[in-house]
Amino acid sequence: MLVLGIDPGTAVTGYGLVRLSDRGTPQLAECGVVRTRPRDPLAMRLLEISSAVQDIIERWHPDALAVEDIFYARNVRTTVTLGHARGVILLAGAVAGLAVHEFPPAEVKKAVTGNGNATKDQVQYMVTRLLRLAAAPSPVDASDAVAVALTFCMRAHLPGLTGPTAMQSC
Amino acid sequence: MLVLGIDPGTAVTGYGLVRLSDRGTPQLAECGVVRTRPRDPLAMRLLEISSAVQDIIERWHPDALAVEDIFYARNVRTTVTLGHARGVILLAGAVAGLAVHEFPPAEVKKAVTGNGNATKDQVQYMVTRLLRLAAAPSPVDASDAVAVALTFCMRAHLPGLTGPTAMQSC
Repeated sequence: MLVLGIDPGTAVTGYGLVRLSDRGTPQLAECGVVRTRPRDPLAMRLLEISSAVQDIIERWHPDALAVEDIFYARNVRTTVTLGHARGVILLAGAVAGLAVHEFPPAEVKKAVTGNGNATKDQVQYMVTRLLRLAAAPSPVDASDAVAVALTFCMRAHLPGLTGPTAMQSC
Repeated sequence: MLVLGIDPGTAVTGYGLVRLSDRGTPQLAECGVVRTRPRDPLAMRLLEISSAVQDIIERWHPDALAVEDIFYARNVRTTVTLGHARGVILLAGAVAGLAVHEFPPAEVKKAVTGNGNATKDQVQYMVTRLLRLAAAPSPVDASDAVAVALTFCMRAHLPGLTGPTAMQSC
């Protein structure tokens, strides 16, 4: 089972592919970011994000797409623009016939650290530990995307359980 | 010159195709709406909107895409969800290589009625008049989309002029 996690952004979209073995051990397959130029028209930036996500799906053929939901406390215009990027990402998943799942930021934090209000550092630390990596995935957008993919693994395999303990046995 | 105007919505997306003759007379080619089911997952609804817009572009081969911008005074969550729909519409334009233009609602109202705070009824009335139609395009989402296409015609051909007077001579 291969899960593509995405942390959407108009400027930087993070992605992370996590493979879940038959024994339930999560393994990082690939992660990275898609950057767009702030001066380009929005339609062009959306096209770049969409093409990059389609490429990843075609290269890896994931079984599911997990996308981080929007955090509403920010500037409204920024949040709405982010909605545009999220729209083309959800669309790429639907076009590819993937199961698409959305997770609020607090749920992702809770799933990987046990605390819905965890800091970015804590999330990076736990992602590194849960996947037994030598260093945290970088930049933080990639790490966040990996956390979303891990959240899906935990939710899919151990409904009702959350946090690192669940992860270790999932 | 054929312009596709779109009034984006997650539930109802209006579209309108306006042809501008060599003499500058605008003519309605087609208009309508794309409806999605509220109970369907967002990714599925975005796929329906995207497919419908792609179909319209393939059938008509417009020269430009004009999309209504978001009105920010509404509920934040609704506005952000609308951003998702707008994202896939802008993407469809970029994929087809169309010139994509965005117009704030007040600019559309100003362009077709001369008043940026005009009511929906006024916009429908002027759309009907400017295109010499027997009746207003219905539902109102289709009429709004036609107004966006008309706004593009006026902005493209008579920069600096606004309102119905400009329209009549464009």
